Amino acid sequence: MRVAVIGLGTMGAPMARHLIEAGHEVTVHNRTRERELPLSVLGAARAETPAAAAAGAEGVLTCVSDTPDLEQILFGTGGVAEGLELNCVVVDCSTVSPSATADFAARLRDRGAGLVDAPVSGGSEGAEQGTLTIFVGGEADDVERARPILEAIGKRITHLGPSGAGQMAKAVNQVMIAGTYATVGEGIALAQAAGLPLPALIEALSAGAAGSWVLSNRAQNMVEDHYPLGFKVALHRKDVAIALDEARRLGLDLGVAEAVLHEEDELIAEGHGDEDVSALARLAKRRGGP
Amino acid sequence: MRVAVIGLGTMGAPMARHLIEAGHEVTVHNRTRERELPLSVLGAARAETPAAAAAGAEGVLTCVSDTPDLEQILFGTGGVAEGLELNCVVVDCSTVSPSATADFAARLRDRGAGLVDAPVSGGSEGAEQGTLTIFVGGEADDVERARPILEAIGKRITHLGPSGAGQMAKAVNQVMIAGTYATVGEGIALAQAAGLPLPALIEALSAGAAGSWVLSNRAQNMVEDHYPLGFKVALHRKDVAIALDEARRLGLDLGVAEAVLHEEDELIAEGHGDEDVSALARLAKRRGGP
Repeated sequence: MRVAVIGLGTMGAPMARHLIEAGHEVTVHNRTRERELPLSVLGAARAETPAAAAAGAEGVLTCVSDTPDLEQILFGTGGVAEGLELNCVVVDCSTVSPSATADFAARLRDRGAGLVDAPVSGGSEGAEQGTLTIFVGGEADDVERARPILEAIGKRITHLGPSGAGQMAKAVNQVMIAGTYATVGEGIALAQAAGLPLPALIEALSAGAAGSWVLSNRAQNMVEDHYPLGFKVALHRKDVAIALDEARRLGLDLGVAEAVLHEEDELIAEGHGDEDVSALARLAKRRGGP
Repeated sequence: MRVAVIGLGTMGAPMARHLIEAGHEVTVHNRTRERELPLSVLGAARAETPAAAAAGAEGVLTCVSDTPDLEQILFGTGGVAEGLELNCVVVDCSTVSPSATADFAARLRDRGAGLVDAPVSGGSEGAEQGTLTIFVGGEADDVERARPILEAIGKRITHLGPSGAGQMAKAVNQVMIAGTYATVGEGIALAQAAGLPLPALIEALSAGAAGSWVLSNRAQNMVEDHYPLGFKVALHRKDVAIALDEARRLGLDLGVAEAVLHEEDELIAEGHGDEDVSALARLAKRRGGP
């Protein structure tokens, strides 16, 4: 399949690599063009603009940071829409607004192309290993056309409804992890201050009701007070804001997710926005000491 | 082993049953005496007071609701201390204050007995099935004497330090689950309001970074808005208050756990204190509707 990949960040670059390894004809484009080079070495063609990357492609994979970036890449000058072939399927792995996604899908449909929203969970490890969980929204036939792309980058692919449903599912994911990261961090801070033996404690906690992916995969960051990526605080903050917008639109008030968003604002203001979300433990720890 | 079991609530009654089934000679006592009857049918002796239950026992298992109840059962009129044999080991499966536990241990030691704090995780299902995770604090020789009791009621037994260390570990557990229950509930409320297909969504979320015991075991309660035990909101609220007290003593500020405590106060004020902690989803749901 001829696939364009636009957006070669922490998530997009390994996705492009998996597509090349799966035997697809890949063309890449990134705003900072140097990021195309390692993929070019692996066999990808390079394109000067999103429109040039999309020209001739049967599928376009986008992976950018936020809703305005996606709109720019799709519909801006030199954007995907300018190069789009009829019946091309655009697979967007960014995490963006569910409502905006439904709007973008309608605009692409007017141009004879489909949009599949396919935000992922599993962090940079999942992207590297090709084991991402993918939350999929879109028309059934678009999803079928997107399937070779989805299968190259992820392990669990769940089609949850029309355009925007994948993004809504990702919003739910980001809400759920918000409280978990925050209070796993608070618990680790308490355990350390109390002098409990951490490896034995974490193992015991993991076997019971406190068991979680966050505890199993991020408690060690918190213990060491060292927060390599993973998944950036600033991006999670952006995603929680999207979820809170949708919740407000639906008349819901998600109080604890909002409390975590405020904690993340505090972290970002202190310069920790590029650390992993597990850096939420900094807040509980920093106040520490008798 | 001759074992007295004092406190036959949701957790204590199945613990007594497991001890009988493991072949121990069990004597039971409960403030509301009728609760002794089903265990008497299974072969347990009944005692009129904690002191009478403790007389002749090599081990005493206590499982009550709060620190003052435990102090009353141990040191009040007709309490365990009045009947205690030399070298008896008291195993306390209640969730109570770590600091008070260290104090009670010293007072029992003065009477020639040991105290092992052994709060559990795993809820009523874990108690019924004998698969509880047990967080253990106490002197090593007391823990060894307590082991036949611990092995009868739980599956994973972790000795974490001196008296109070088990309670501190349980406090950490209760902090960690606080945020998880709260935002899993908020996420389910958002997913339902948005009309996502819940079984497929929950399965997909469970495979990624949002995976947790709470999601796997309590999301269905939240979906159905029906909150059978499990573990009571009012007891979790009490446990989080204990954790926040210890955190304050250590100079820590656990902001998200505290936000969840306030939500639980709201639930309790509305008459939902006897429901499972998953009832936290009520708050996000109730505000719902466009």
